[in-house]
Amino acid sequence: MADVAARLAELGLELPAVAAPAGDYLPAVRSGQLVFTAGQLPFVDGALPATGVVGEASGLVTPEAARDLAARSALNALAAAATVLGSLDEVVRVVKVTGFVASDPAFTGQPGVINGASELLGRVFGEAGRHARSAVGVAALPLGSPVEVELVLEVA
Amino acid sequence: MADVAARLAELGLELPAVAAPAGDYLPAVRSGQLVFTAGQLPFVDGALPATGVVGEASGLVTPEAARDLAARSALNALAAAATVLGSLDEVVRVVKVTGFVASDPAFTGQPGVINGASELLGRVFGEAGRHARSAVGVAALPLGSPVEVELVLEVA
Amino acid sequence: MADVAARLAELGLELPAVAAPAGDYLPAVRSGQLVFTAGQLPFVDGALPATGVVGEASGLVTPEAARDLAARSALNALAAAATVLGSLDEVVRVVKVTGFVASDPAFTGQPGVINGASELLGRVFGEAGRHARSAVGVAALPLGSPVEVELVLEVA
Repeated sequence: MADVAARLAELGLELPAVAAPAGDYLPAVRSGQLVFTAGQLPFVDGALPATGVVGEASGLVTPEAARDLAARSALNALAAAATVLGSLDEVVRVVKVTGFVASDPAFTGQPGVINGASELLGRVFGEAGRHARSAVGVAALPLGSPVEVELVLEVA
Repeated sequence: MADVAARLAELGLELPAVAAPAGDYLPAVRSGQLVFTAGQLPFVDGALPATGVVGEASGLVTPEAARDLAARSALNALAAAATVLGSLDEVVRVVKVTGFVASDPAFTGQPGVINGASELLGRVFGEAGRHARSAVGVAALPLGSPVEVELVLEVA
Repeated sequence: MADVAARLAELGLELPAVAAPAGDYLPAVRSGQLVFTAGQLPFVDGALPATGVVGEASGLVTPEAARDLAARSALNALAAAATVLGSLDEVVRVVKVTGFVASDPAFTGQPGVINGASELLGRVFGEAGRHARSAVGVAALPLGSPVEVELVLEVA
């Protein structure tokens, strides 16, 4: 267990304020040694930087932009997890990432998009940030978000 | 841990019969202190009250109707969980809700739909009913169901 | 806990080589008594036997073909789980299966497709292979795969 706050600062990242859940639920819940986060959208200061579906065609959110949004969603998920922990230093490892990508039916590059989340977790936690993962392409996400990321973490 | 049966009665609700799984699987499985339910459709007496995708356009399932279906799916999920518990009084808390909404590509109100499930769980379990949640919009669901809800519960 | 290797041989199955993850993640992670696999595509010798969405219309992947692909995804998921276990004999039971089916919007037979995975797990593990399950129809999956299957296993 590292000094996660220091590591975030080294990376030029700041743990954001937790977005208010979009309904009657919590940002994260701890059960035993696991923390389950709610699905996180890539909010920055309370707004989505982009909306729409991801794909290669003109007018769609580009895979490159979506990758950055996935990284932001992962950072927001860490902020969500922190609401039920004394500190992110209690994270023993990232267990599972599920990444939903609002996808044009012709778009099959979901893994590249969700790599934005996976790589952020690797940069923050090192080896402990490596996780199992599913990436799927869905029809639509809340508020038109291009991506949504949820985490399962093991904690001390 | 409350008297869940009494609380359901107060709310005018009855734990339904468990729908036969749509394949070679179980309504719920317990592992340690966690119960994972199968994804539940909003069956009432063995039939889906509505089918189709959710959206604002004419001919689609309305978000308001879908919200009621999500509540029913959550109630069915409690019935599923009860198959592996002596009593729902063993539920310590609702940990995670995942809500899938069969969505018109233009529909982004999945959180409002899945609030039907979240609010039912809050009414039944109070503070212990508050959970982490993901809501996503998918292309199609089994049998044309507009919604599907699965739960992870912590049990005593 | 049975002799899973012998059982696979009886069934004419061989545990495949683990597909390289499509990004910066691991095939499976163990946390306590649970193993979470990454979402598995139906790779055979490093290639997808079919791509496209599943449906009844001409030109689509048939539900029957998709069912076989779901079985293969489940077998690949067992290979993924084996990477964090000394042996699959440590599997106490299959807890949860989530099956994503890339679906034509008119296709609602996701349960029949994911039965391919459920039945394989039942054949391999017997009663211990019975699990809770969600099956959903999504817009698109990585690399154009028609199906993706992830597992949660309880291990000794």
